[in-house]
Amino acid sequence: MFSKILIANRGEIALRIIRACKEMGIKTVAIYSVADKDSLHVRMADEAVCVGPAAPSASYLNIPAVISAAEITDVEAIHPGYGFLSENAHFAEICESCQIAFIGPSPQNIRLLGDKMAAKETMSKAGLPITPGSNSVVKTKEEALKIARRIKYPVIIKATAGGGGRGMRICHNDIRLISSLMTAQAEAEKAFGVQDVYIEKYIEEPRHVEFQIIADHYGNVIHLGERDCSIQRRHQKLLEESPSSALDSKLRKKIGDLVIKGVKAAGYRNVGTIEFLLDKEKNFYFMEMNTRIQVEHPVTEMVTGIDLIKEQIKIAAGEKLKIRQEDVKIEGAAMECRINAEDPQNNFMPSPGRIETLNLPGGPRVRIDTHVYQGYQISPHYDSMVAKLIVHRENRHEVIKTMLRALDEFVIEPIKTTIPFHKQLLNHPSFRKGDISTHFIEQILKTNTEGESKEAKT
Amino acid sequence: MFSKILIANRGEIALRIIRACKEMGIKTVAIYSVADKDSLHVRMADEAVCVGPAAPSASYLNIPAVISAAEITDVEAIHPGYGFLSENAHFAEICESCQIAFIGPSPQNIRLLGDKMAAKETMSKAGLPITPGSNSVVKTKEEALKIARRIKYPVIIKATAGGGGRGMRICHNDIRLISSLMTAQAEAEKAFGVQDVYIEKYIEEPRHVEFQIIADHYGNVIHLGERDCSIQRRHQKLLEESPSSALDSKLRKKIGDLVIKGVKAAGYRNVGTIEFLLDKEKNFYFMEMNTRIQVEHPVTEMVTGIDLIKEQIKIAAGEKLKIRQEDVKIEGAAMECRINAEDPQNNFMPSPGRIETLNLPGGPRVRIDTHVYQGYQISPHYDSMVAKLIVHRENRHEVIKTMLRALDEFVIEPIKTTIPFHKQLLNHPSFRKGDISTHFIEQILKTNTEGESKEAKT
Repeated sequence: MFSKILIANRGEIALRIIRACKEMGIKTVAIYSVADKDSLHVRMADEAVCVGPAAPSASYLNIPAVISAAEITDVEAIHPGYGFLSENAHFAEICESCQIAFIGPSPQNIRLLGDKMAAKETMSKAGLPITPGSNSVVKTKEEALKIARRIKYPVIIKATAGGGGRGMRICHNDIRLISSLMTAQAEAEKAFGVQDVYIEKYIEEPRHVEFQIIADHYGNVIHLGERDCSIQRRHQKLLEESPSSALDSKLRKKIGDLVIKGVKAAGYRNVGTIEFLLDKEKNFYFMEMNTRIQVEHPVTEMVTGIDLIKEQIKIAAGEKLKIRQEDVKIEGAAMECRINAEDPQNNFMPSPGRIETLNLPGGPRVRIDTHVYQGYQISPHYDSMVAKLIVHRENRHEVIKTMLRALDEFVIEPIKTTIPFHKQLLNHPSFRKGDISTHFIEQILKTNTEGESKEAKT
Repeated sequence: MFSKILIANRGEIALRIIRACKEMGIKTVAIYSVADKDSLHVRMADEAVCVGPAAPSASYLNIPAVISAAEITDVEAIHPGYGFLSENAHFAEICESCQIAFIGPSPQNIRLLGDKMAAKETMSKAGLPITPGSNSVVKTKEEALKIARRIKYPVIIKATAGGGGRGMRICHNDIRLISSLMTAQAEAEKAFGVQDVYIEKYIEEPRHVEFQIIADHYGNVIHLGERDCSIQRRHQKLLEESPSSALDSKLRKKIGDLVIKGVKAAGYRNVGTIEFLLDKEKNFYFMEMNTRIQVEHPVTEMVTGIDLIKEQIKIAAGEKLKIRQEDVKIEGAAMECRINAEDPQNNFMPSPGRIETLNLPGGPRVRIDTHVYQGYQISPHYDSMVAKLIVHRENRHEVIKTMLRALDEFVIEPIKTTIPFHKQLLNHPSFRKGDISTHFIEQILKTNTEGESKEAKT
């Protein structure tokens, strides 16, 4: 086992990794930007190295600075967390060449699965259903129209290097398709440096269901069931849960078995997530694979009792996976609310600033993963997430009750947060019934606005 | 089910009950003393009534004020928590006569089991082993000497109305017995208003093992296994865990079966705890029954998944117990550290004051029950406990690791707390082996002091 690990990240995930390391008896090195010098992850780690100014490109994404910090502190491994360098194949290669273990998949894994077209091809060959579409880069109007005729409208244009909704366009007819193709290409070029786009059948009101996997270096692969992340706003997840109310054990096993085939076909190792779209007829389509730990990993930890960060570290250290598929039991239900410093009353505008009053919820069945404290200054330089509030209970109905009481206890002032938004969501009758899709938030926000306009008129 | 409950308590247990009520859809009324006006339990409840000045006798123990608050707010039930009025049979009677449900046992139960001699007699008749002793009040030297000759030294003198070590004396010979009898009687008189004492065989280096029970109004009784509370200082528990490393499943079943017989014999209802001393040969002796929720109840909640506060409320509302004995499964291990505002370096002297910096531990497997926040003023009028830190893991070994990392994260400044004491304890080789007794703390504190004196000499 490693004796010292550098954590190439900040915020709650840096703390989360430090916690796992402490319990494993591994020393930790934090890195931080000038803006983060008073962060908890800096205080909690055994050592801390400043890697640059506030701007992520100058610090957390600054590969030479991160590698220098690792060499100065003589660590044996780097945990990249999520975001920043976690899906950067080049960084993983540099770690390898410096004889530092990258806690994650191989650079080849990252590269293959980071290319959406290549990932789809690999998974499709392994037997996973994919959405009908171009299956390759679409360059011209003529190609686009031909594909749209074959798979039928609505279709969606996506950037091959994409993410976060950039370079994405939904088209319901030929005219829209032609006009969207060029704008999507331009947007992709701007956002990712590559203008390549492809076309797919657009699944209407799907659910986002993703499977967590663990794979070791010896060909052992297991899945830990699914997370339902349908509650999104502009492709940003806001609330995640496990299990999904859309899956029964038969469908879970069916998808799970295919997931394991896909992971084996990709020769993948470490933890990862395979994302699917699930349509109303319970058809599922492989979307992409995330080659890192995800923000929402705690819901899986709660229902399975498996510590995913420790598994990542053990696998990176060359240990064999000790958990067999038949050992994995999904117990009860878990949900995570992302508490973001954003104003839900004002189009989720970021709301940075100093936390003057903080009261964290507690008591039974509540887990909090946060890096903030009373007096903490939320920086505008980074992600607006300030805490993850996680609840684990015997079933989804009870989870919602405990989550509501925990949200009631949660005080962060004077900044605006998504707490009132989550309360509204958890009280929504359709949400309570589990009747959700990736469009749910848009729909309820629209209803709110309409309601307000009506009130304004009368 | 009740629609509104008054909580006749303060601090973390008041919050704990509010949390349960919120999840059950029950409105809550907090009571508070002038000193507690800024307490979290006041903020979290739906309503709050001031019942008097800081002194407990004038507020939380002031029965007319508490009953008035209940009548003004029109509650259907009162939860007494622990301490204060929770074991006051008279208060339970007044609640009954005011048509307010007392969330606890009947006044008769409280009275019978509050009398240590009567409790022992009841339990002994039901088949529970009790320590050899006088079995009745000892008034004279002659009686005392006769009993000591029969049961042999060492013996212990105890107050029948006792608790907290007051009126207690350990005697190794006749001379000590005679001199201690009168001082014990005088101490009992002073502390409890009754000078009655009795004599028992003194069990050397025992473990304190207690069984949690739940009983409904229809004769259904179950036990939820044991808690080991051997880690005590001057009869004050400091750390509790479940299961006990001294019990195997056979002994657990044996004691558990007897416990159920005892509870049935007493005609007891609601939750309660039967405390035993366990000697080195695994003989166990009934000590007393606590007729209320205990501070350490969360460790049982964690390993069984059963919410004891909710069970209390359901039973008081007349619901039938839905859990059968065969449904009760002890999963993993749980431990609770009581974080007290006391200075372990200075004879555990209370350390009240304002909390200027607070950082609560978080992340996986950690539960915090606390009523304090940054800026909270710890009052010298009440119990010094500021938080309960509870950890649940797959086994005791892992619990200790997680507890240590959680204690490392826990910052309360500038007041002194028992955090450093717990760290020392959890790192002690004997504690790690589970080799503990109710004298363990005395022994390690003595060793510390000796170590210090030696250092001072050299």
